[in-house]
Amino acid sequence: MGEFALIEEIRRRCAVPRADVRLGIGDDAALLLPRSGHELAVSMDTLVAGVHFPHATDAFDIGWKALAVNLSDLAAMGAEPAWATLALTLPAPDVDWLAGFCDGFAALAREHGVALVGGDTTRGPLTITITVHGFVPSDQALRRDGARAGDCILLSGVTGEAAAGLACVLGSGLLRAPDDADRAHLLERLYRPVPRVALGLALRGIASAAIDVSDGLRQDLGHTAARSGLAATIRTASLPPSSTLARVGDESQRLHWQLAGGDDYELCCAVPPDRVADAQAAASALGIALTVIGHFDTGSGVHLVDAAGDTVELPRGGWEHFSACA
Amino acid sequence: MGEFALIEEIRRRCAVPRADVRLGIGDDAALLLPRSGHELAVSMDTLVAGVHFPHATDAFDIGWKALAVNLSDLAAMGAEPAWATLALTLPAPDVDWLAGFCDGFAALAREHGVALVGGDTTRGPLTITITVHGFVPSDQALRRDGARAGDCILLSGVTGEAAAGLACVLGSGLLRAPDDADRAHLLERLYRPVPRVALGLALRGIASAAIDVSDGLRQDLGHTAARSGLAATIRTASLPPSSTLARVGDESQRLHWQLAGGDDYELCCAVPPDRVADAQAAASALGIALTVIGHFDTGSGVHLVDAAGDTVELPRGGWEHFSACA
Repeated sequence: MGEFALIEEIRRRCAVPRADVRLGIGDDAALLLPRSGHELAVSMDTLVAGVHFPHATDAFDIGWKALAVNLSDLAAMGAEPAWATLALTLPAPDVDWLAGFCDGFAALAREHGVALVGGDTTRGPLTITITVHGFVPSDQALRRDGARAGDCILLSGVTGEAAAGLACVLGSGLLRAPDDADRAHLLERLYRPVPRVALGLALRGIASAAIDVSDGLRQDLGHTAARSGLAATIRTASLPPSSTLARVGDESQRLHWQLAGGDDYELCCAVPPDRVADAQAAASALGIALTVIGHFDTGSGVHLVDAAGDTVELPRGGWEHFSACA
Repeated sequence: MGEFALIEEIRRRCAVPRADVRLGIGDDAALLLPRSGHELAVSMDTLVAGVHFPHATDAFDIGWKALAVNLSDLAAMGAEPAWATLALTLPAPDVDWLAGFCDGFAALAREHGVALVGGDTTRGPLTITITVHGFVPSDQALRRDGARAGDCILLSGVTGEAAAGLACVLGSGLLRAPDDADRAHLLERLYRPVPRVALGLALRGIASAAIDVSDGLRQDLGHTAARSGLAATIRTASLPPSSTLARVGDESQRLHWQLAGGDDYELCCAVPPDRVADAQAAASALGIALTVIGHFDTGSGVHLVDAAGDTVELPRGGWEHFSACA
């Protein structure tokens, strides 16, 4: 399979028609029609085999996740996804692998109406880089620097399960072996993250800041705090519970996964107290839990407190993806 | 040097201010203001160490070339460059290497007013993927499918010298060893390609189609021919001469380099006969030679003929970059 057959196969399997694509795959550049009155949100993320996922990961899951982590960035800006470009570096052309990868990519792309408009295929160690483009109405993007003192910190879904999923894959770090259902759930959370695109759109006009949690809640929240010039306090007792995590680990393990684990792709946002009910109603309408886990205040850094308000200690360090274990 | 120090260093060294960047590096996505009345041209290219360039290549040259090959794609569309995102995968953080890479990238970015607005840094085998964005007035892009029967084929600059430069690096394939000046010239052509951005802009409204020559003139011209549903004929005697190539190789070697060598990043365009003088005048004003090397006609494929009109045979195959020799 030569480069041109490869590109044709990708084009065919990943086709999503959009009226704002004047010219897609097949020329020196794609020609696109940005949406008037909107800003263009652009994000780019790379997954490297053996670093961001184990080499043995299923091709479908790699395709899904490579797009998901990018769409999660658009979600965190409150942007509506539109176009993607894909740089696929492969050790060797492999028809079956490529079909699986494209099907995983396309399953998520169709769900969000994302057109693959271009990219590059090269030979080398398996690496996937995707650039995504989305629209956000002018001045309505959810940025990291918009949090204000007094804002509540809200977290979508549950964090920590992807980290426990990685522990399953590595066969280490779980206090108790999961049963089949728990194992399947944790692996699903690791390999098929669901970008919170609809939630990001719903939070426009409500949240004052947002970030997606990909490198660990504490570390990512630290970026929002730093960019907003504030301190963030997390009440650890308020972290959304996970019955699965409770079954496979103890309290200390759970806290570590939930605060320092990564690959969650949940949204963590700042919301003024008088808009929390609106934010939660919007999330609820989408079937997503949105939990108040703390607040922003003057100061700096991320602080962890227990139910009594006492400081909780947790070893430093963010998520190193798969690399810490590779 | 952690990931955040790395990103800060890239941001600092590559800063190019643009009024149409609402939010650059440092959030989940960049926020950009597309130009009204224009289409957005988007292209993405990857360079892999050991495949697209020898591992020992100077960091400055890698940074320059990684951006150059992308800008060349915008040039081939007649698009004005605006923004870039950079995915940099590095085996290990290396302050000196990064400084060199950024300086090479930034030297070209400043020349073309390209703002680096985002990207990703990851650990893994050295790989650089860049996505570039540019503007082209609506319906004025130079596409591959616009050539018409009777159009002349024009080529900017000279092809083949980058391929001879690679032969210098590999220390094989040159009939005669180059003197220092020739060697320096050939390496410059290999490592510091100059994207024909101004020429691409000048050819809007004159050329009916264009492509950049990166995988070998014959192969790339074949794409234009195929997409336009035409046959392309190259008069080999009309290929722009290179005194350097004449000094290091014989006629057969020169032909091979010029037709099947790659990494040239020249523009090859289709121009109606009555606009050839306009195209050449526009190129001349930019100090660029634009040579008529053949014509499009009904039919298919790329045909090579000598001065007498007889078919010239050349082994099949396009450029495989460095990979053929890796």
